[in-house]
Amino acid sequence: MLPPALQEAIDALGLLPGVGPRTAERYAYYLFRSDKKLATTISESLENLHERVKSCPKTFALIDASEEISPLYSDPTRDKSTILVVEEPLDIYAIEQTKSFSGVYHVLGGAVSPIDGISPDDLHIKELVERVKDDNVKEVIIATNPSVEGESTALLLQKLLGEKYPELKITRLARGLPLGVDLSYADQITLSAALAGRTEL
Amino acid sequence: MLPPALQEAIDALGLLPGVGPRTAERYAYYLFRSDKKLATTISESLENLHERVKSCPKTFALIDASEEISPLYSDPTRDKSTILVVEEPLDIYAIEQTKSFSGVYHVLGGAVSPIDGISPDDLHIKELVERVKDDNVKEVIIATNPSVEGESTALLLQKLLGEKYPELKITRLARGLPLGVDLSYADQITLSAALAGRTEL
Repeated sequence: MLPPALQEAIDALGLLPGVGPRTAERYAYYLFRSDKKLATTISESLENLHERVKSCPKTFALIDASEEISPLYSDPTRDKSTILVVEEPLDIYAIEQTKSFSGVYHVLGGAVSPIDGISPDDLHIKELVERVKDDNVKEVIIATNPSVEGESTALLLQKLLGEKYPELKITRLARGLPLGVDLSYADQITLSAALAGRTEL
Repeated sequence: MLPPALQEAIDALGLLPGVGPRTAERYAYYLFRSDKKLATTISESLENLHERVKSCPKTFALIDASEEISPLYSDPTRDKSTILVVEEPLDIYAIEQTKSFSGVYHVLGGAVSPIDGISPDDLHIKELVERVKDDNVKEVIIATNPSVEGESTALLLQKLLGEKYPELKITRLARGLPLGVDLSYADQITLSAALAGRTEL
């Protein structure tokens, strides 16, 4: 019933994660009503996304296709003996924005999740184990998500790395109260963790 | 810090209505991780959106660029003496899905809203007034949204059309309880309207 081109745009936008038919309609109609330039901008930016972005072969961060290796790794001022391990590439940018970390990163590419069919072999764990040896790493900071999958991945890494490198320091991000959240709204597990990990004033 | 192509995609997707930076990140990263075909599908569908879709010069519904006039208007089985007036083109498809209307449509292109700088002159009201005469219209059904702007647009149309065509029947969609909503959750105005418009069983 809709003009075919509009229907195609609605169907295509509906393939984005979490976008239902109504939202897709709203996006498509907005693009149609707005200046043609907007649709062109989005269209062009998506056209070359795959050609112009790739994974760093060492850290698995996302890098420009023209680069050999992640600039966060090749930067000589960064301490290669400390690796912070994250699930997804965008997690790196959350950490970088804190400006509190000067080591290097390693992206696992997800977390172990039997339900989603993600086994340890699907993650870049083997590469991490090799990096620890190759780069003479002193500390691995595990920064997986505080979810069931993230926690079990953290335990797995701890076991694997701990057995192979008994000298290696393995740490993980602190659990505790996030800023601005009322104590009474914090869940039990977070509160227990905050209590167990209390720091001296 | 992100690869430029990814950052461009995030920025571009962030221009969609209601899409903040985090959602745009999620969309862009999903497109990067998914098969290249998905990004291409969306890109191509947006590329020709403006060329392949246009407004019907009579009803202002959205039509394929190859068509002269909306097929819902040119269809000889539809009753041209009954016009249903909506704010936006997509409203037509909501009504069509009910399969309860066999007249023709007229899209205003919005509702009068002094706050957003939309005056009656910005809407296709003049064209509606002419259609009533040209097509010898018997009834105009006003189906603007039940919002402040929609209601005032409805009053304006009623005044304009009523003065010019005293014989014309002007109606609007019934107000009342929507299906599946508990009586106790209905707001006062809806409930008053439902009571005032009660029908005999």
